[in-house]
Amino acid sequence: MILTEHGEHPTANGPAEYFTGTVRLARLRESETPSRVNAARVTFEPGARTAWHTHPMGQLLIVTEGEGWTQTEGGEKRTIRPGDTVWFAPGERHWHGATADSAMTHIAIQEAVDGKAADWAEHVPDQVYLG
Amino acid sequence: MILTEHGEHPTANGPAEYFTGTVRLARLRESETPSRVNAARVTFEPGARTAWHTHPMGQLLIVTEGEGWTQTEGGEKRTIRPGDTVWFAPGERHWHGATADSAMTHIAIQEAVDGKAADWAEHVPDQVYLG
Repeated sequence: MILTEHGEHPTANGPAEYFTGTVRLARLRESETPSRVNAARVTFEPGARTAWHTHPMGQLLIVTEGEGWTQTEGGEKRTIRPGDTVWFAPGERHWHGATADSAMTHIAIQEAVDGKAADWAEHVPDQVYLG
Repeated sequence: MILTEHGEHPTANGPAEYFTGTVRLARLRESETPSRVNAARVTFEPGARTAWHTHPMGQLLIVTEGEGWTQTEGGEKRTIRPGDTVWFAPGERHWHGATADSAMTHIAIQEAVDGKAADWAEHVPDQVYLG
């Protein structure tokens, strides 16, 4: 059993390569074979969002604070709020982040395959993010 | 993308076979191949706890409310609070629940193997739970 107290999880800023704006990540769990689970608490400041990306085994988001937006390729932008969950299927191209005016925090759960839990693509431009 | 709003997750009472006391589960995600991830929000009323059990690929708990207790076989009982995370290794025998006086809610994340995400054993008697 590994008990990690609140505030003791390793934190990092979301790298500019994969995120737009100010994003803070707290690592809750790194994948360790035979488990594939990988989990983080992610806070997006207003206007911040991920780049477009996919996950090899999909992704579950559990919104815990604030208000955010998310979109899959070809789909409508949706608003997400505390208690909402979002499931993205394996390989489904999407982005998620805060709204323009509110911060948003979610827990993100994904499975690593061959050491990789996400495949990253281009940033989400303002006209898509605000669209 | 499947967006499930807060309050729309299927809920159930924790079955008496696997739990002592009043436990409410909200299913956040059922495993669906090729993903193995399975997630629930679980609320234990004061005095309520799981039976002893193991998970084939381990389990991650993220405490969201209240105060709880958890213990692995042969280990000390530990107190868990909001923001704390607990990782149980594959096959590690353990239990978790509320304290005697406080309710506790956590998100539980585990991976299903051959359709099974947990192996259940005997209930936790009061002398262990309160010990």
